[in-house]
Amino acid sequence: MGTTHESRSISYASAAAMVAAAVAKAEELGCLQNVAVIDSGGNLKAFARMDGALLLGTEGCQRKAFTSLFGMGTQALYAAIKDDPSLVHGLSHFSKATMVGGGLPILVDGEVVGGIGVGGGTVEEDVACAQAGLDALG
Amino acid sequence: MGTTHESRSISYASAAAMVAAAVAKAEELGCLQNVAVIDSGGNLKAFARMDGALLLGTEGCQRKAFTSLFGMGTQALYAAIKDDPSLVHGLSHFSKATMVGGGLPILVDGEVVGGIGVGGGTVEEDVACAQAGLDALG
Amino acid sequence: MGTTHESRSISYASAAAMVAAAVAKAEELGCLQNVAVIDSGGNLKAFARMDGALLLGTEGCQRKAFTSLFGMGTQALYAAIKDDPSLVHGLSHFSKATMVGGGLPILVDGEVVGGIGVGGGTVEEDVACAQAGLDALG
Amino acid sequence: MGTTHESRSISYASAAAMVAAAVAKAEELGCLQNVAVIDSGGNLKAFARMDGALLLGTEGCQRKAFTSLFGMGTQALYAAIKDDPSLVHGLSHFSKATMVGGGLPILVDGEVVGGIGVGGGTVEEDVACAQAGLDALG
Repeated sequence: MGTTHESRSISYASAAAMVAAAVAKAEELGCLQNVAVIDSGGNLKAFARMDGALLLGTEGCQRKAFTSLFGMGTQALYAAIKDDPSLVHGLSHFSKATMVGGGLPILVDGEVVGGIGVGGGTVEEDVACAQAGLDALG
Repeated sequence: MGTTHESRSISYASAAAMVAAAVAKAEELGCLQNVAVIDSGGNLKAFARMDGALLLGTEGCQRKAFTSLFGMGTQALYAAIKDDPSLVHGLSHFSKATMVGGGLPILVDGEVVGGIGVGGGTVEEDVACAQAGLDALG
Repeated sequence: MGTTHESRSISYASAAAMVAAAVAKAEELGCLQNVAVIDSGGNLKAFARMDGALLLGTEGCQRKAFTSLFGMGTQALYAAIKDDPSLVHGLSHFSKATMVGGGLPILVDGEVVGGIGVGGGTVEEDVACAQAGLDALG
Repeated sequence: MGTTHESRSISYASAAAMVAAAVAKAEELGCLQNVAVIDSGGNLKAFARMDGALLLGTEGCQRKAFTSLFGMGTQALYAAIKDDPSLVHGLSHFSKATMVGGGLPILVDGEVVGGIGVGGGTVEEDVACAQAGLDALG
């Protein structure tokens, strides 16, 4: 095995475009959002909090983005683990995790290169804004 | 009572061998794991994160190792406490605890001398890798 | 006194423009930066981490932005307090403060409405990028 | 600019070899060490705490490894910044930083791909053990 290994991460340019697209979607939907994009190392790349957005969403969107590194949208997580109470009760207590919807993995060529998380609206609004961020990747 | 008391803990040499064995098992199973061994004082002795392993597992494996100091594998914890909601809802909010499977106590002569936790795969994979760590103690 | 009071804060639109201007300045200077804008409530409004930027700067830029709510650039803080050891030794231990240069208050009509912090380059580069952010306010 | 960017990080295999070499050096010197290797994303890859090693060093070695991502040994940091009191008083208060010697960047082809930090001995012992870790990369 080699001394180093390569990993791919969402670029800042793309992360900023994703955040802008999520904010534009929130404006369209009439909701106020916090939006975070993290890279594959779990570190914040780009963030936005719209004027008046719920402060709880600042932590929430970062937890959602981090948890999506699983490779699954956080809105699907509960359904995936609901038959295992130890996971349901356990997972969302990790300091950076959550089962609340609004986090989506950023996949490029099938590889998770980061995550986007949105918090501040309803779960449906959060997911729609996160998806708008992904759609901005083209 | 005396001025001091003795405690027994897993040695670093054994902890390192356990981590190596858990990593070898993960390679055999084809999963990417985080592995932690803590001593009876709750402090980290040895840790490994395989290339590409889920970052959530870094915290997860340490919580699992810590919680196993109960003397019970974390995969058995939910079943043991499920009829007491105060425990179910309470335990996993502790900053170092979790009910997620993948943590096993390290027992020597019936005494808990530490814990091993594995996170990053399915619960079954996590438990299998933790068990491989224990088996390395001979 | 009334039941409530008003406060003015940097808008998200302006915060995003400031971050973009600071990043553009960093590209011009050839350095890699972390940039944060916080509002007058001390909460993150907009953030950017350029590809390859020093991870220490992620915390650093947020501390700088927060500390600038004093109404003074963080690069001037040490000189202002150096004759009072209780301040010198005390201030930077606060969890959100720092005396490292690179934080500038955002003033509108003489009122502090937020702060911008930049971290990842030399102090001179950090201050220049933060200033470029302020200049974007027009 | 592209959607993603590549980054190189120390592999687990190399990180584990570095930790083992640092521990071997500590045994040779007769000191008890905590050793951490982090990757370029700032996340823990491998860790060891020798039996009886100072618990303060568990946090210390991780701070040293993280701070070395600057590209400079932490033992050289004070000398580099001593004429700027704002840096001397400021830098080591960041939650993951320290100016204490014992952290060395892991450089491959001139690129920082991680950091090793050692804590528990004298600064000279810590640096010698960290260097032994680097030497193991061959």
